[in-house]
Amino acid sequence: MVDVATLADFGLGWLEPSGPYADIVLSTRVRLARNLQGHAFSTRSREGEREEIFERVRKAAAERSSLRGGVALALKALPRLSRKVLLERHLISRELAGEGGEGPTHGSGVLLGPGELVGVLVNEEDHLRLQSLLSGLRLQEAYQLVDHLDEELGNQLPYAYHHEFGYLTSCPTNVGSGLRASILIHLPGLVLTKEIGKVLQGISQVGLTFRGLYGEGSEVVGNFFQVSNQTTLGKSEEDLIDHLQKIVRQVIQYESQARNVLMRDAPRVIEDKIWRAYGLLRYARTLSFEEVMNLLSGVRLGVSLKLLPGLSVYTLNKIMIFTQAAHLEQAAGRALSEAESDLHRAAYVRRILASEGDVSADLGAPGDGAEE
Amino acid sequence: MVDVATLADFGLGWLEPSGPYADIVLSTRVRLARNLQGHAFSTRSREGEREEIFERVRKAAAERSSLRGGVALALKALPRLSRKVLLERHLISRELAGEGGEGPTHGSGVLLGPGELVGVLVNEEDHLRLQSLLSGLRLQEAYQLVDHLDEELGNQLPYAYHHEFGYLTSCPTNVGSGLRASILIHLPGLVLTKEIGKVLQGISQVGLTFRGLYGEGSEVVGNFFQVSNQTTLGKSEEDLIDHLQKIVRQVIQYESQARNVLMRDAPRVIEDKIWRAYGLLRYARTLSFEEVMNLLSGVRLGVSLKLLPGLSVYTLNKIMIFTQAAHLEQAAGRALSEAESDLHRAAYVRRILASEGDVSADLGAPGDGAEE
Repeated sequence: MVDVATLADFGLGWLEPSGPYADIVLSTRVRLARNLQGHAFSTRSREGEREEIFERVRKAAAERSSLRGGVALALKALPRLSRKVLLERHLISRELAGEGGEGPTHGSGVLLGPGELVGVLVNEEDHLRLQSLLSGLRLQEAYQLVDHLDEELGNQLPYAYHHEFGYLTSCPTNVGSGLRASILIHLPGLVLTKEIGKVLQGISQVGLTFRGLYGEGSEVVGNFFQVSNQTTLGKSEEDLIDHLQKIVRQVIQYESQARNVLMRDAPRVIEDKIWRAYGLLRYARTLSFEEVMNLLSGVRLGVSLKLLPGLSVYTLNKIMIFTQAAHLEQAAGRALSEAESDLHRAAYVRRILASEGDVSADLGAPGDGAEE
Repeated sequence: MVDVATLADFGLGWLEPSGPYADIVLSTRVRLARNLQGHAFSTRSREGEREEIFERVRKAAAERSSLRGGVALALKALPRLSRKVLLERHLISRELAGEGGEGPTHGSGVLLGPGELVGVLVNEEDHLRLQSLLSGLRLQEAYQLVDHLDEELGNQLPYAYHHEFGYLTSCPTNVGSGLRASILIHLPGLVLTKEIGKVLQGISQVGLTFRGLYGEGSEVVGNFFQVSNQTTLGKSEEDLIDHLQKIVRQVIQYESQARNVLMRDAPRVIEDKIWRAYGLLRYARTLSFEEVMNLLSGVRLGVSLKLLPGLSVYTLNKIMIFTQAAHLEQAAGRALSEAESDLHRAAYVRRILASEGDVSADLGAPGDGAEE
């Protein structure tokens, strides 16, 4: 069982950058929206009905599915801080966390399989949101995992399905396959070369959409973009996945080209930018989350370009997660004001970077061999 | 003999911060302007006469003075880079270095005693400029050294002297005692608390003047100020020195108070500023001299406040001198463009800081004991 009091590394399997292109593509997520026949959609259902749904899903998952042996959390039973931690880990949605409203509703919960590769959100916008979250660019694998879980649960639970429209969902934009596949990608090269606008425009023109780090409506920070499919209707799941995969590969190629151009035309400027970001993260005493994200962007670029030897993508991923407000409060064991949060954030960052040792093996003079 | 090709640490004895208040007062300089009877002032004298003067001074110094066993450099014989290095070390003036003009004139030179505490510039604005340059606040000592040298040389050389005006000088502002005493002082506290304007105004009102790092007309960088007496006429040397000493002690007190206020009211902001400056110096790949000076200002404040354990004022002093353009060119063994200079500067700084080891022993979380 997960220790709900601390949550430790719960649900953070994807931080280990084992997937392809993990230095550029942080994570791949595929989710399927499903609803149960004979129940009102979550947004309209009453307490008792919602709790009945959670119980049915939990039971089906525990009996015969890849979630068996995993964890089931009823969000109402969790302290607010734990819910915020789950939210910051992208394991539950803002809606499910009950943020901004009156807390989580009855029957809302999250199930996570052993190994944390697949899970289900229950009674969010839809009765079930099956999802898979993996490191790197692994769309096919993520889809297969979630598809398999879908089959397992579908064998036990009567999904709402229309022979013409496909799976029925609370919001019409999800009707059909109910599939949304998204990848979180780091594009500093395209931002620095100012080509990002063109690329994002291209993405929109081929039926994809992009968002900031925290999904819909969130701002882009640290040059991280979420790219996902926009339409769910009239295309097979495989086609949607293949299409996204193809486009993302192209974006990765553009990003690589942009980085090559930067390193060809202005290597010193880029190196300086990267090392300054590292120096500030390593020694600052107060850091806002936004500043951390922006500095991490430079450092991640440096690691990807092999300019910061000895620093791992895993550490960068960890910093992204553990410097968020709720994570810092959990570590401190108490509520933190914004100013305190900035101090704790900086302390966390310099501790983790110091523990990686000095990354600057190279101290030669420029042009004198050591650096060339 | 000094190795003129590299100059090594020639004339840098004052970098060792052994004097009182050396963390705030970088150096004390006292100089006396003297001219020889029977010769036109340097600005009007011809080649042969100027060379004759240099020869007379050199001979007197070598025979019976505290300069005996030291070094005599005829500037015309030095390569331009070496002259610029001497200039950057504040050992010779811009005028004597021949910068901006057609190179150094005949007979211009510098004599430096063994131990480098006293020296003489020959054929600058005046025939002789006797000077002493010491670490920290040591006005009395510096004056005694230069006064002693003055007596030694005056016994052998006929100074131009008027019974009413005192020592005659090329520029009327130096007539009388011919004395200018100045201290180079670091005032980040007063700058940060915005009280510096008031303090500088006060200085002007008591017959003192302030300048930037490189003397007259130079801008203030890195919160370093040169404070010196403005008048030389109608006051005894001792009075001038005592007055300056009194005022400088007062300024040091104001600066200390300002630092106390900052550390009382905004310790986190100050610590953050200091550590960020250190982080950038430690890792930047390209640095302008002005940026180095500004970052050094923060780091020096940190060392003075004992927030950066393990980093020495000596290292900071060295960085100030050795990151100047001519010093970098000398170390590189070739001319450097401005962009190259910025790269070499950054390489020098991070090498010297790395050699001091990691200064951040403290990695505790804020508010959890380790930092309080």
